[in-house]
Amino acid sequence: MILRSAPASPFGRKCKISAHILGLMDKIEIIRANSMDPEDSLRQENPLGKIPVLLMDDGAALYDSRVICEYLDTLAGGNKLFPAGDARWPVLTLQALADGMTDASILQVYEKRFRPEEKYHQDWVGYQQGKVQRALIWLEANAPAKRAQPHIGDIALACALGYLDFRFEGVWRSSHPGLVSWLESFAETNPAFGETAPHD
Amino acid sequence: MILRSAPASPFGRKCKISAHILGLMDKIEIIRANSMDPEDSLRQENPLGKIPVLLMDDGAALYDSRVICEYLDTLAGGNKLFPAGDARWPVLTLQALADGMTDASILQVYEKRFRPEEKYHQDWVGYQQGKVQRALIWLEANAPAKRAQPHIGDIALACALGYLDFRFEGVWRSSHPGLVSWLESFAETNPAFGETAPHD
Repeated sequence: MILRSAPASPFGRKCKISAHILGLMDKIEIIRANSMDPEDSLRQENPLGKIPVLLMDDGAALYDSRVICEYLDTLAGGNKLFPAGDARWPVLTLQALADGMTDASILQVYEKRFRPEEKYHQDWVGYQQGKVQRALIWLEANAPAKRAQPHIGDIALACALGYLDFRFEGVWRSSHPGLVSWLESFAETNPAFGETAPHD
Repeated sequence: MILRSAPASPFGRKCKISAHILGLMDKIEIIRANSMDPEDSLRQENPLGKIPVLLMDDGAALYDSRVICEYLDTLAGGNKLFPAGDARWPVLTLQALADGMTDASILQVYEKRFRPEEKYHQDWVGYQQGKVQRALIWLEANAPAKRAQPHIGDIALACALGYLDFRFEGVWRSSHPGLVSWLESFAETNPAFGETAPHD
């Protein structure tokens, strides 16, 4: 299988960490994609032009990260990162919360990347910041358990916090000590987190 | 259960259509939410401040629409809207494609809603339009089957196209006759589509 991704992508990182934890990295070749390049085959693979995309051996393309991670979980026997039964719903909701933090963070980055400075709009940036801030406050008060076997909600949260470190200089850390401790524990338990540290 | 949503929300519509098809509407009270109102309890229910949110009878909140729809499917016995086995992955990928079209459409609407006119940036709007356009072209060439029993990919696509009708005057229709025919068939087979037509 081929994973189209980029080293800076927090959603690509979810897939890579999932593959590492599931012992599937030797089945996956990572080929860098440039979502800004119209000539990159990415836009044929996923018409949205978004990464990550998983190209399966039969040529079919799977996306987005939620779909890829669940597929990898099934390949590895199932119910490892995605629990069945009543435990499934809070895990999937944590993934949605963490992915939503990442989406709101990316929109703040894109505000500067896609516009000339005179078109920055602080109200919009603040609206997205508000989503991230409220999520951080909620998570600090409702921090996930420090698990030996992470689930997809943990992985998504680690990638969301890692993206805040990468693009926003870790300013979240000073006021969220419980989450800092949680992330340190996640990184210790899962070497793939450090191995997938983002870079441009 | 309580569904926090709004009549204009395409992602809320996914949940309502799913609940209708699964025969669960009599178990769900819909309470309107205003994602722009800081005083709305929505931001406590989902720190992202996004709709839809499903409040379960034990007080727990589930989001986003993908999680809610899969939970409803499980409540109704499972494997109705979300197939198991190999059929699952193309269905979930179609859902991701359709949801991505909707996200890109919403960002175009928000460009005007959140900014003064001098801060509109046509390059950004065009970048989002490109995602929708490529997805429409791909879907026109790879139109889903007209199924008596829709899956979540069908529902998500119907809501994405319905949102284009609602906010972009249906300009997609003239150049995508296969998708128009598909949507007419979906609407005929699923009266919930018409019953949940969006309005402000």
